[in-house]
Amino acid sequence: MSTFHSLGFGIGTKNAKLEWLEVFYPQPVLAPEASLVDAIQSVLGDATGTIEPNREQWLALAGALENPALEKIAKTCAESVRPAVLTLIAKDSKPESTPEAYLKLHLLSHRLVKPHGVSLEGIFALLPNVAWTNEGAIDLNELSDRQLQARAQNRMLSVESVDKFPKMTDYVVPTGTRIADTARVRLGAYVGEGTTIMHEGFINFNAGTQGKSMVEGRISAGVFVGEGSDLGGSSSTMGTLSGGGNIIISLGEECLLGANAGTGIPLGDKCTIESGLYITAGTKVMLLDDQKNEVKEVKARELAGQSNLLFIRNSVTGRVECRTNKSAVVLNNELHANN
Amino acid sequence: MSTFHSLGFGIGTKNAKLEWLEVFYPQPVLAPEASLVDAIQSVLGDATGTIEPNREQWLALAGALENPALEKIAKTCAESVRPAVLTLIAKDSKPESTPEAYLKLHLLSHRLVKPHGVSLEGIFALLPNVAWTNEGAIDLNELSDRQLQARAQNRMLSVESVDKFPKMTDYVVPTGTRIADTARVRLGAYVGEGTTIMHEGFINFNAGTQGKSMVEGRISAGVFVGEGSDLGGSSSTMGTLSGGGNIIISLGEECLLGANAGTGIPLGDKCTIESGLYITAGTKVMLLDDQKNEVKEVKARELAGQSNLLFIRNSVTGRVECRTNKSAVVLNNELHANN
Amino acid sequence: MSTFHSLGFGIGTKNAKLEWLEVFYPQPVLAPEASLVDAIQSVLGDATGTIEPNREQWLALAGALENPALEKIAKTCAESVRPAVLTLIAKDSKPESTPEAYLKLHLLSHRLVKPHGVSLEGIFALLPNVAWTNEGAIDLNELSDRQLQARAQNRMLSVESVDKFPKMTDYVVPTGTRIADTARVRLGAYVGEGTTIMHEGFINFNAGTQGKSMVEGRISAGVFVGEGSDLGGSSSTMGTLSGGGNIIISLGEECLLGANAGTGIPLGDKCTIESGLYITAGTKVMLLDDQKNEVKEVKARELAGQSNLLFIRNSVTGRVECRTNKSAVVLNNELHANN
Repeated sequence: MSTFHSLGFGIGTKNAKLEWLEVFYPQPVLAPEASLVDAIQSVLGDATGTIEPNREQWLALAGALENPALEKIAKTCAESVRPAVLTLIAKDSKPESTPEAYLKLHLLSHRLVKPHGVSLEGIFALLPNVAWTNEGAIDLNELSDRQLQARAQNRMLSVESVDKFPKMTDYVVPTGTRIADTARVRLGAYVGEGTTIMHEGFINFNAGTQGKSMVEGRISAGVFVGEGSDLGGSSSTMGTLSGGGNIIISLGEECLLGANAGTGIPLGDKCTIESGLYITAGTKVMLLDDQKNEVKEVKARELAGQSNLLFIRNSVTGRVECRTNKSAVVLNNELHANN
Repeated sequence: MSTFHSLGFGIGTKNAKLEWLEVFYPQPVLAPEASLVDAIQSVLGDATGTIEPNREQWLALAGALENPALEKIAKTCAESVRPAVLTLIAKDSKPESTPEAYLKLHLLSHRLVKPHGVSLEGIFALLPNVAWTNEGAIDLNELSDRQLQARAQNRMLSVESVDKFPKMTDYVVPTGTRIADTARVRLGAYVGEGTTIMHEGFINFNAGTQGKSMVEGRISAGVFVGEGSDLGGSSSTMGTLSGGGNIIISLGEECLLGANAGTGIPLGDKCTIESGLYITAGTKVMLLDDQKNEVKEVKARELAGQSNLLFIRNSVTGRVECRTNKSAVVLNNELHANN
Repeated sequence: MSTFHSLGFGIGTKNAKLEWLEVFYPQPVLAPEASLVDAIQSVLGDATGTIEPNREQWLALAGALENPALEKIAKTCAESVRPAVLTLIAKDSKPESTPEAYLKLHLLSHRLVKPHGVSLEGIFALLPNVAWTNEGAIDLNELSDRQLQARAQNRMLSVESVDKFPKMTDYVVPTGTRIADTARVRLGAYVGEGTTIMHEGFINFNAGTQGKSMVEGRISAGVFVGEGSDLGGSSSTMGTLSGGGNIIISLGEECLLGANAGTGIPLGDKCTIESGLYITAGTKVMLLDDQKNEVKEVKARELAGQSNLLFIRNSVTGRVECRTNKSAVVLNNELHANN
């Protein structure tokens, strides 16, 4: 018997050339139990990768399953007007197909794996750029004909996004979340229980929040935010895809990025950047101890990952300062340890 | 005969447990006239709160009404496929039900009351978190089934928002407004006649603009902006719900928040904050008189509510400065008066 | 035989008074060839401006056309449920009607003309303010009736925008682009081949990108961005409609606006503004040469259009500085040349 990294029963969309545009997996499974794998193999043999069972196979599969939710999905796949797929990922290497790429994005948004917890290597090449419309996913080469047709037939064909990633909520709404403008959260985001994403908030794929957070700023690809941390309106975290270099940004617990603030370094726990201040890795910062004595001028990157820091721009001198609740001696030791 | 604070005839949505998810009141009434109350009571007796008349009662009510617009609505309620409701608020205390909460939000967006003009105490608990979709409001517990069903039936079920507040324009578009991206204005916003809200603009509930304004920034919950004031792109007003403490922020008339600017203090009339500058209550500001002489270093909160101020960060010294068109003597007197 | 500036076969929407609300031209034509003009005139005579051919005329036109794509559109116009229009613009003067205004916006978004390449004088007056809904364009005076009706009939009528300009992608998706949230790109935007507009990006009409760009900031009306230039998240370009005065902002090639940065001056090639810094025309800037020696304090407007500049705010002194890879002598000469 084989083991699998993950699997999913999906319903998706193909273009006129019968290439996959996207796949919806209502209930993806991470590390499936032996009984589930056995049931699948009893019907489909030693299959792996992307399979498209026929109606009879889906029904046989439904009959072999113990989990009632999966049984229901398999039955729905059997009768679906749209193409249904069974995707089996043997191990977590780079995804090989559009259905596999979509399955991995689902694992993140269903909170089955955390950001950086699954290989997404080469995913851009596997995700076709799609027109996301009120009539579903449409291949860009087929769009203008569809638009003309819709007009003449008095239907509104609205193109809401043209992107490789769809919006997450058309695939899953994780429990305990509010997402005021869903256009701003991509499939592949990990939205923690208790997170509210306000209208100005944004979460890219392979990024998100551990738990309770108020997100009114931008969580770039690869950025993970700890429990209890808030991002103020229009605050910015530098991504690794563009501009942010190679440092992976993260925020620890109970951090606060003020409105219109930003960070180009990872922050530890209980750090604050005041509203309107942008810290990049190269920003020269005067470090002050718990008595507000000057300790040392450092580049912000030397403070990466440290906790209990408050970054401000002194409004009298214009100097960027970092205050802490620690004494100068402790701070100096920590900076040494960091080098 | 009783008097009422407000009332509305509504059509709404319930979940599978028959709990209200939302209510649409096409024409809410503030301080209804005696004749209207008489007509309602002639049909429904001494009712108050949330009533669900049956078809005959709606038709009888329609027959008793003098106002043709309300009569038409009552007739529509009689024939509606979806649940219809008559909501009567006796006096302006904290709302008691979802339909009452929705009626109060309507009063704001219909410009019948101004921000802070009606009690919204405890409103979050009365507003269920809802999936707002192209098929209407859906209970979050019922969503995943609906999504699977829609897929199999080849329909696109698009979840546009997951929030306690719906977008305003699905309930009312106030006259004389433009709202480029309606996802960014919540029901309960007060959008003044002559206001244009550009794509980056945002207005929360219990907040808004008095009259003509160009809004390309964020008007947080509780913030009210005077006639002729503009908010530049991504500019920020601190809210009272998070981060802004207890000071209620407001802008007077003819203020300008530059692009990417922000304020954590209320501003009087004709104030400007230059692009990119964020003023918080604790920002130390050098006050300059009409001759650009230094008057005094103050915390920004001491300037709260004053008029004719121009806030900049001196680009040579990095110091935050506040210029005014008044002499040093006048300025000092005003600061004293403020303490 | 006449010549024309441009023409289009369109299908549109009228209100109850039979006034045009909007027009969709699937394939607008700039500088039509003689054969196309001949074909049109053989059916419709010396027509110009906005014509509404009847079914027979559309079919005759389809028969006279050589271009198969236009022939197909003409046939679709013949059978369209919605009003079809033939718009002929004789020369590029100010637009005279709603269909002409829409044709010119199409020319921009189809990349047939560049920003500032066609007269849009007085266009605001020709574009009615419209409710853009999932049931198409609706006159604002007809909206509340439609909303009530939809509710009673259990349909969701969603008002996605209330604006004079529709979103571009409902009219055309230019090749080689990604537009993550299409609500943020107006018809009349010029989106270059290879441009990705992320969720925070925005492009107004008569503005856009020459070619490959990553747009996570705001490209205001009139602003054009050169090949290879990127705008970071929430970065801002001042528009000429409000706030930016009379200087038309542009970016040359390979520029970078950092996240939350902004510019009120046009930039040449290879310029960078660091994250969080807003440069306005009046900002005093210390110019530093390739050795980081101070050259001169200038107002930013004196640096307008120059290349190879790096703008930062010195985080130790708070001073805004402009660094370059040129020697002091060269810089001084260039500043002279600029005066």
